[in-house]
Parts: sequence; C-alpha cells; structure tokens
Amino acid sequence: MSTAEAEVLALIENRMQAVREKDVDKAMQFFSTNVLCFDVVGPLRLTGADAVRKRVEEWFTSFDGPIDFAMSELHIEVSDDLAYSHSLNHVKAAKTDGIVMDMWWRSTVGYRKFSGGWVILHEHNSVPFNAKSGKVSFDLKP
Amino acid sequence: MSTAEAEVLALIENRMQAVREKDVDKAMQFFSTNVLCFDVVGPLRLTGADAVRKRVEEWFTSFDGPIDFAMSELHIEVSDDLAYSHSLNHVKAAKTDGIVMDMWWRSTVGYRKFSGGWVILHEHNSVPFNAKSGKVSFDLKP
Repeated sequence: MSTAEAEVLALIENRMQAVREKDVDKAMQFFSTNVLCFDVVGPLRLTGADAVRKRVEEWFTSFDGPIDFAMSELHIEVSDDLAYSHSLNHVKAAKTDGIVMDMWWRSTVGYRKFSGGWVILHEHNSVPFNAKSGKVSFDLKP
Repeated sequence: MSTAEAEVLALIENRMQAVREKDVDKAMQFFSTNVLCFDVVGPLRLTGADAVRKRVEEWFTSFDGPIDFAMSELHIEVSDDLAYSHSLNHVKAAKTDGIVMDMWWRSTVGYRKFSGGWVILHEHNSVPFNAKSGKVSFDLKP
C-alpha cells in the first residue's frame, strides 16, 4: 500500500469511528469548507461544510444510542495529491421513534491533499430505486 | 485548464454526445472492463463493462427517438493520471410507452489515465429520496 493510500484509509477509519461515536466535530474535521455533497435524501446537493454539518447533526440525533456502522467492498484510488474511494456502507441503529434502521447505501468520496493533509472535497451517498415500482430499494444487500 | 482536465472534459463531451445519439459502442468506449457502477436503479452495484453495457442498451431502447441530455454544474478534479468529476445530469425524452421522462440526477465519475488514455473506473448515479415520505424525489431541479 502506498503512503497516500494509507493516509486516505486512516482518514476513512477515523470518520467511521466518529460516526459510531456520533461525534460531530470528529466526523466533520476532514471536510473542506467548500465540500459538495450529494446525500441519500434531498435536496439534489448540499453545498459547503455548514450544510453538511447540519445534516450530520440531524442524522446523529435521530438515533437513540450508538450507531453500528460498517463498510464493505471499500476501494481507494490514489495519486500523490488526489484520491477517491467507493464502498457499500451499512448502518444498524435504533431511531428515537423506536424503529431500527438497517440499511445499505453506496458511497463515493473525493479527496485532495493540501499542505495540512487530506480533505474531503466531494461526497456522494445514495440508495437505488426499483425501476418497475419506482420505490426506493431500502432492502438491498451486497 | 490543464492538459489532463481538457482530456477528461473531451471524454465527458464525447460520452454526452453518444447518449444523445443512443450509440452504445460510442458510449461504452471509455469504460474499463473492470468498471464498478452504482446506478440510479438497483442492484446496489453493476460490476464490469458487460453489465454496464446491458444497462445502457436497455436504457437507450426504452426511449422513442433521440435523448435530450445535458449536464449542469460540472466540476472536474484532476492530477496527472487520476481524476473524478461530478455534475447534475438532466434527461428529457419520450419513452416507448408514451411517457416523457424529464428528470435530474447526480453523477460522480472516477477516471484513471493509462498508456492508451483516460478510462472510466467508477461511476455513481443517483436520485435522492424524501426523508419524510420515503419516496424517490424525481421532481427536484437545481
């Protein structure tokens, strides 16, 4: 594994731990202020770290207790100062309304290395829909 | 604009034209045989160019006549041999069942430059859903 790939992998593992702990500051520490995020729910895109932080805060507080969060099929492509990763992400956690969320989604993330280290410039999270029914496919598993 | 960015932009414009013409071979010419695609509809991922070609063929033949296809807010991040792009894509076209599809979706694409030029290693297309209704948000506009 190259140094660049190891650095990006460390960032990903740090973020994953931050989600499990529902630690907003830790989860947000790697985002560029200019990040552009396509999230699983609308609008079409969230522009800037403030908008992403608001979404993360809402997401974390919708759960009662810690989040069981994992990644599958993680793949990282790197050059010296540019990288992207993609993975299938899974969360299982009890929501404050009592419903247990147990969901897979697809994630693609773009990174750039600046003098201070790697930052996230772009993130794309989504759940596919069923072409025939037009409904969201919340029940798909890898 | 750097040479690398101009090359990736040319690839994107070539693909866009191929979609408008519903030319499967032209649309597939830049895909790696090992491409991993997260598409707007399930399954969670399509693995390999054969699976993507089948999806492209089905999509093209679902329309009666040419596809009015455009991109908005296209952004490209490049290094010498790695790149990714993201954009909001729009299609308006009459389906063979008479219904006119008029839809925006989010697209993120990963590229690598090999000796023969740039190829697509990864693509992620999606439509967000509405957090409250749980339904796909087909009506969102930039």
